[in-house]
Amino acid sequence: MKTALWKNRFPPMKAGRDMTVSVAFDLKPYLDEKRALVDESLKVYIEQTTPGAGGRISEAMAYSLMAGGKRLRPILCLAACEAVGGNCRLALPAAGALEMIHTYSLVHDDLPAMDNDDMRRGRPTCHKAFDEATAVLAGDALLTSAFHILSKADTRLSPEVQMEVLGVVSRASGAMGMIEGQMRDILAEGHPLTLDALKALHALKTGALIGASVESGAVVGGASQHERHALLTYAEKIGLAFQVVDDILNVEGDPLVMGKGVGTDEALNKATYPALMGLEPSRRYAQTLTDEAISALFPFAEQAAPLEALAQYVLTRKR
Amino acid sequence: MKTALWKNRFPPMKAGRDMTVSVAFDLKPYLDEKRALVDESLKVYIEQTTPGAGGRISEAMAYSLMAGGKRLRPILCLAACEAVGGNCRLALPAAGALEMIHTYSLVHDDLPAMDNDDMRRGRPTCHKAFDEATAVLAGDALLTSAFHILSKADTRLSPEVQMEVLGVVSRASGAMGMIEGQMRDILAEGHPLTLDALKALHALKTGALIGASVESGAVVGGASQHERHALLTYAEKIGLAFQVVDDILNVEGDPLVMGKGVGTDEALNKATYPALMGLEPSRRYAQTLTDEAISALFPFAEQAAPLEALAQYVLTRKR
Repeated sequence: MKTALWKNRFPPMKAGRDMTVSVAFDLKPYLDEKRALVDESLKVYIEQTTPGAGGRISEAMAYSLMAGGKRLRPILCLAACEAVGGNCRLALPAAGALEMIHTYSLVHDDLPAMDNDDMRRGRPTCHKAFDEATAVLAGDALLTSAFHILSKADTRLSPEVQMEVLGVVSRASGAMGMIEGQMRDILAEGHPLTLDALKALHALKTGALIGASVESGAVVGGASQHERHALLTYAEKIGLAFQVVDDILNVEGDPLVMGKGVGTDEALNKATYPALMGLEPSRRYAQTLTDEAISALFPFAEQAAPLEALAQYVLTRKR
Repeated sequence: MKTALWKNRFPPMKAGRDMTVSVAFDLKPYLDEKRALVDESLKVYIEQTTPGAGGRISEAMAYSLMAGGKRLRPILCLAACEAVGGNCRLALPAAGALEMIHTYSLVHDDLPAMDNDDMRRGRPTCHKAFDEATAVLAGDALLTSAFHILSKADTRLSPEVQMEVLGVVSRASGAMGMIEGQMRDILAEGHPLTLDALKALHALKTGALIGASVESGAVVGGASQHERHALLTYAEKIGLAFQVVDDILNVEGDPLVMGKGVGTDEALNKATYPALMGLEPSRRYAQTLTDEAISALFPFAEQAAPLEALAQYVLTRKR
């Protein structure tokens, strides 16, 4: 697991024993801890938002939600909350809602009328495991549950903060954000895209929700406008890096590790960074974006160590 | 247009000229006025929630949303707000969100994988006018926009009231309400349902959102717990009446007036009130439910005249 070294970012302190201060951050235990927190809350949230529901809807929701995703978005949310000095447990509802929204978007995107994918996260997609009607409804239910969780009065947060999180999340996931990105992606099939159009598409399709993850964590953590702005720059850069790496993995990734097919973009003649820039320039571009993301974290010092490590993780991930 | 007469509910006042006080309520101008209000806000809400979006998503959203629906749910919301003495303009965001949620549910229900309907509100369904992928996304976007509108800070309402509306609406439209009803409806195909199971199905599929319409209006209007409870009883009764009438119209309605097919339930061998109870007993049942709904309005006196007339409208509507 890649570690982030802080020695280059802070001048050596004058320590008695003439040591260079070097704070190494080990991401793996951090990811394990946060993933466990997120998974535990997601189980509770499914139970809370499906009482009285028959087995099938909550089964299909849980099938897709608990399929071992990376939990990148919720962990970014928790890490952003901590970066501004907040208690990450207060950000768990936002984190869970974001993962539910991400999952619903995958369930609907996988439908035959959309990307028509049979496998996701190493097992049959929701409409394959259940049926199309159930997948449409389970996606709808995950989206609605996300907003229901965010709407529950939380005495540890002011209603103003809760409303602001709702605003951030609903803006990013709707027709101004993720859904418009998906629409553009579909419309782009069979049409050549310029690099700028591809970046704009990804800023919406993937970037908006990654931005909302970081921003909602920051809001819960009580970020200043300045901090929020810096974190949004970080999110914008890693969001784009995430997509560039996704495209690279689709060229040279291991389908067994990824749990989904490889080479599918080329087969569909899709506009991708490797196709438009070449593979090696795409790698360099992802590295540059990661460097820029990490630079944006400068104001936060050690508290942003997890976010720095997450940026490296986005760059070096194998799935 | 049916009018509601109040003379039976209040004892005649001793008027100078020995007149019986009879407050007739003319529903048509009321419906026209509220529909215009709702339609105007819906246009604004679509614009507000789709800036930066390409044409296709907002076109598909508007195509389904502005197709001349009855606007029953938003008007119930406004009328409930007024019944408890509130200013109905403050309930417009809730009213608009409820219509968006109702419309998204129709767009998704019409999909080939669900009810596979070609016509809705007198014109081709969304996936027929556009395509399946666009219909899935337009539905998703309508649902997300609904929550985005409810999440906008409204200085005329406290954030607590806004959060409560969000809670009411998200609960009713998710896996505890409308979506579970739709799931049960799909699972019931080809299986005989008892009358109780049919009522429970409809309480979820149609009743939950009608209940949320009345309840959210009541919350915005500052209803007491007592008033809220009475209005929920009203909503429960008209929600069920609505569905009984729907089933009756599917037997004997005019497809030209309704803008959709007739006799489709029988063709699909669906459990309906006429099939389970007979046509005439279904009519009587709808009348009883309407009477019970109107009785629940007793505490509100004249301010509930529109709600009473709306109950009559639900009973006597032709589409």
